[in-house]
Amino acid sequence: MERLTLIKVGGKIVEDEATLGQLLNDFAAISGRKVLAHGGGRSATRLAGELGIETRMVGGRRVTDEAMLRVVTMVYGGLVNKNIVARLQALGVNALGLTGADMGLIRSEKRPVGEVDYGFVGDVKEVNARLLANLIAEGVVPILAPLTYDRASGRMLNTNADTIAGEVAKALARRFDVTLMFCFEKKGVLRDENDDESVIPAIDRAAFARYVADGTIQGGMIPKLENAFQAIDAGVKEVIITQASEINKGTGTRVY
Amino acid sequence: MERLTLIKVGGKIVEDEATLGQLLNDFAAISGRKVLAHGGGRSATRLAGELGIETRMVGGRRVTDEAMLRVVTMVYGGLVNKNIVARLQALGVNALGLTGADMGLIRSEKRPVGEVDYGFVGDVKEVNARLLANLIAEGVVPILAPLTYDRASGRMLNTNADTIAGEVAKALARRFDVTLMFCFEKKGVLRDENDDESVIPAIDRAAFARYVADGTIQGGMIPKLENAFQAIDAGVKEVIITQASEINKGTGTRVY
Repeated sequence: MERLTLIKVGGKIVEDEATLGQLLNDFAAISGRKVLAHGGGRSATRLAGELGIETRMVGGRRVTDEAMLRVVTMVYGGLVNKNIVARLQALGVNALGLTGADMGLIRSEKRPVGEVDYGFVGDVKEVNARLLANLIAEGVVPILAPLTYDRASGRMLNTNADTIAGEVAKALARRFDVTLMFCFEKKGVLRDENDDESVIPAIDRAAFARYVADGTIQGGMIPKLENAFQAIDAGVKEVIITQASEINKGTGTRVY
Repeated sequence: MERLTLIKVGGKIVEDEATLGQLLNDFAAISGRKVLAHGGGRSATRLAGELGIETRMVGGRRVTDEAMLRVVTMVYGGLVNKNIVARLQALGVNALGLTGADMGLIRSEKRPVGEVDYGFVGDVKEVNARLLANLIAEGVVPILAPLTYDRASGRMLNTNADTIAGEVAKALARRFDVTLMFCFEKKGVLRDENDDESVIPAIDRAAFARYVADGTIQGGMIPKLENAFQAIDAGVKEVIITQASEINKGTGTRVY
């Protein structure tokens, strides 16, 4: 099968002119088939503030009422996504901006109200990868905004960018050898959180269990790695956890 | 060749819940291949106002500075476009939202500064219809936002929705029998502007020249019809000027 690289970058990278420019140059330089999934939370929070709409986060997730849904639809689907698309086109990358609603790509359902009512937040139910894979095979490079849709109501729903990246990687794994790359602040999974150079180069399930047992890996890195192993179980070839500035350097932590 | 209907609707229709719902139902009912091109100026003006950004229009066209470019990118490419896409998906239409930047679909250049500096407004230079036609042939329904891009700078540019509709119709005319339908406030081109029922059912170039000479057709309808004849000259099969609520009724003025 052909190789495909799916890069996920957070809002911090795509919203700063210097880091965005560097990222897009690095992304353009990736050979072979590729997909970019992006966040945009800081811009959403800023626009909401300018409009007098309060931003409420619970456990790192945005509570999305009707007014906030309009904001994230504008910012993620319009401002951030189309800016990336136009700039990549200028770099010779045939980018196509997509939300989950476009071509019915990612169908979700509004998260049920539990202890928290997250509002218009979507839990992914189905990725329709056929048309996407056809486009990729024609040289199109999908740029995925963190938005999905509910087919019954015809509503956009706010959806975590890590989830979008993971679900699309799994759906494409039947048609491509997928490398899924999660970019975050550190150079990879660290042995010592105070030493940025202590990157663990590779982790399989057995090593992960040992690192969790001895306390080397803890906190927010545990669900991140659990998601990575779920992608591996679903056929994704490898998951790399690295820094946005290192996506072409072969560094970071390889989960396999 | 297969038939394709390209409908252009302005902001007034897509921004009012009642008329939008009716339009999307009517659009879903159109048989055969189809494309929707939409405006969104009222929402852009409203959002700009909420953000304290002044809206300046010259000759009906929006002056687009950096701040306004962000607004129209958000509103046209995000809010209006994705709302239409998600709702059409719910109606069983496989909609895909596109700006001119997506897949390099519509390349433009920033309008030169003349008597007026329109700012980041794009004059269309090239429509790349191949990938679009392939998608349409697979059953995808493109939903076109009034935005194009400049390839040299990687910038989005604000572009009139009538122009988008006309240029895309011409580019698709080599591959489909295209009917281009411009929806506006009246039921068609009127013989008597004070009588909404005085629709001229069909106009060719000779009739147009006579109507202009005798003053029946005047004002803003003249450039609208000149654009329609240009589309006909470029291979579009017919142009219909009608009301949004009548797109499936076979009424309006047929330009051929």
